[in-house]
Amino acid sequence: MLSVDEARAKILGALKVTPPETIALANAYGRVTAVPVLARLTQPPSDISAMDGYAIRAVDAEAGAVLKVIGSAPAGHPFNGQVGAGEAVRLFTGSVIPRGADTVIIQENVTASGSTIHLTEAAGIMKNIRAAGQDFAVGDVLVPAGKLVNARDIGLAAAGNHPWVTVHQRPRIAILATGDEISLPGEAISDGGIVSSNAHMLAAFIMACGGEPVVLPIAGDNIAAIVEGADAARGADMLVTTGGASVGDHDLVQPALQARGLTLDFWKIAMRPGKPLMFGNLGTMPMLGLPGNPVSAYVCALLFLRPAITELSGLPAEAPVLETARLDSAMKPNDQREDYVRANLRRDGYEWVVTPFGKQDSGMLRTLANAEALIKRPPHDPGKKIGDIVEIIRLGAMGL
Amino acid sequence: MLSVDEARAKILGALKVTPPETIALANAYGRVTAVPVLARLTQPPSDISAMDGYAIRAVDAEAGAVLKVIGSAPAGHPFNGQVGAGEAVRLFTGSVIPRGADTVIIQENVTASGSTIHLTEAAGIMKNIRAAGQDFAVGDVLVPAGKLVNARDIGLAAAGNHPWVTVHQRPRIAILATGDEISLPGEAISDGGIVSSNAHMLAAFIMACGGEPVVLPIAGDNIAAIVEGADAARGADMLVTTGGASVGDHDLVQPALQARGLTLDFWKIAMRPGKPLMFGNLGTMPMLGLPGNPVSAYVCALLFLRPAITELSGLPAEAPVLETARLDSAMKPNDQREDYVRANLRRDGYEWVVTPFGKQDSGMLRTLANAEALIKRPPHDPGKKIGDIVEIIRLGAMGL
Repeated sequence: MLSVDEARAKILGALKVTPPETIALANAYGRVTAVPVLARLTQPPSDISAMDGYAIRAVDAEAGAVLKVIGSAPAGHPFNGQVGAGEAVRLFTGSVIPRGADTVIIQENVTASGSTIHLTEAAGIMKNIRAAGQDFAVGDVLVPAGKLVNARDIGLAAAGNHPWVTVHQRPRIAILATGDEISLPGEAISDGGIVSSNAHMLAAFIMACGGEPVVLPIAGDNIAAIVEGADAARGADMLVTTGGASVGDHDLVQPALQARGLTLDFWKIAMRPGKPLMFGNLGTMPMLGLPGNPVSAYVCALLFLRPAITELSGLPAEAPVLETARLDSAMKPNDQREDYVRANLRRDGYEWVVTPFGKQDSGMLRTLANAEALIKRPPHDPGKKIGDIVEIIRLGAMGL
Repeated sequence: MLSVDEARAKILGALKVTPPETIALANAYGRVTAVPVLARLTQPPSDISAMDGYAIRAVDAEAGAVLKVIGSAPAGHPFNGQVGAGEAVRLFTGSVIPRGADTVIIQENVTASGSTIHLTEAAGIMKNIRAAGQDFAVGDVLVPAGKLVNARDIGLAAAGNHPWVTVHQRPRIAILATGDEISLPGEAISDGGIVSSNAHMLAAFIMACGGEPVVLPIAGDNIAAIVEGADAARGADMLVTTGGASVGDHDLVQPALQARGLTLDFWKIAMRPGKPLMFGNLGTMPMLGLPGNPVSAYVCALLFLRPAITELSGLPAEAPVLETARLDSAMKPNDQREDYVRANLRRDGYEWVVTPFGKQDSGMLRTLANAEALIKRPPHDPGKKIGDIVEIIRLGAMGL
């Protein structure tokens, strides 16, 4: 059996980042930059006032001085004249400092009457002034390549005068759920049949990871349907299949797709839930075969599909972040498989407290939906008692 | 001056959750349920096999027994006959247990030859069987009302046969950036002018919080433009304004909108950055006035706008989650204002290590974009030394 880390490394090693595309900055949230965003201007463009007040000459800035206000320069309306001896220009936050002035006295330190101001405090040179280029200068890297764009990056790229950005294309992930027994919600359910939960769970999962899901029609357990499904996935960055294990999908998928250039590995992974996994290539398209069981499919998606989408997106792929939590109930020793145990979570001060659910049957989707965390247990992990510290994956923190 | 917590409580107290709408389950990721999702069927619908194997009578399940295989029932194709004494039916994971059988012997414990199987191990009663309703029964609450829908909830609602779900409408948040000095990226920049970073930073921020941004055209610093902007916001769940402080937006916004029924409070909040804040109602629409400075606007959005969107969405609003980190450099004592200090973050084992940036000028958007965390310092917080534990808000963890 393969370890989880070995399997993940094999998958990630076979993937290539998606090509770039140019999109509106307003659509860039959650995308990954393919080229750096360089400043197209200098910010601030000239020395500006950091406060509401008056631009004056520092040599005039004595307590008790009386100065003549010769103009006003709201932000966006620079004063075109020059500030001479004994003169002041009214300024506001963001106003350009007029020529001649070398300090700003804040309005709280001034008494204004008519066109004169009386300084009630002194001010040193270059006070309350933001120097040109203090934030960034033309050519500075505002957002490096390979960065997940957040709201602040969008603000910064806007400030640097970029209406467009070049990002990696969203990985298009085709989802092929297979099985004679499944139908979509609201459709007729066959005798002994169930409603497909994997296809749309995975579609939402893929969106949450930054991918673009393509839900293919459900394929029955026969070669023609599987060939048709795989053909519909053409052009995707990855094909994800689920299910079909009940009639030996190994035997169906491989002959069905061999003529399409399929090379496929079947792996037994030393993990619980979710032992069987397929990975290979359909021509140039990577293909990941998840178990049909929804709980196993989800945990495998978390451990293998999520990093794969990250890698395709242009970000460094990683295993889920592990945090620590204090156990609220005892756990038996683990066997040779890495175990992912569904659990409840609560906050106690700055610490997480975790309670594994009693029933861990992989057929119980509701237990998965109710879980706030998975407890990760290494192979042969000894028994745990109440109060022991364990490693957890916080599902809510990932929006998954 | 108002405390941050007092200001937030006043804002949240004035908000009403958005009305419901019915949407396709496939679009429900990140939405908030307005009514519970109840199971429309029982899962599994009947007793099913948890493994690949053979349905037999437990009384026949002795090691060494030889049984006759009378049929096969792949998942979705139930066996319509009955399993009698000495008989077996081939099953797969998910197959319905045929009448007469009361246990499943897994295929690993059987040697098959022709139409007979030889049991190599014994099996107890009801082994490897998932009982009908083990996951859920008709009428069970699958997703409660008021829950943020994740990928697993979508899978569970699908399994419960729901093609549609009823959720709260996404809060529509209109954004009105004001200022004579700002223009949008790619547009002509006036003398002394800068590019607007707030409008699209906030739009991305609002999307990340689950809202639907409506970016209004920039309004110049004059009454007619502000009236026009506010009129364009009609029907939104909230109007957010930014900027204009440099020419006294208090004085402009209030007379401009008084005829439209504006009631407005101006608050000085004991925080840094981002002291001035407006909150009020324009008719029935709540209005939040953020500072024009991008760093102040962002921090105010984090502390006030984010919980407001959460509250409008139908979730319990909360202050940002605080985590702890170990300081990597000393900090001076804080004054009377709650301080949010931009900082770098790194992981050391299970602990966060935080390094405040040297320059905290609120004019520096690049420092904000580079920050991984904000260190929260209470009013009058004493000086800190290297190794002290401080409270942080992890910006990356919120996708903001």
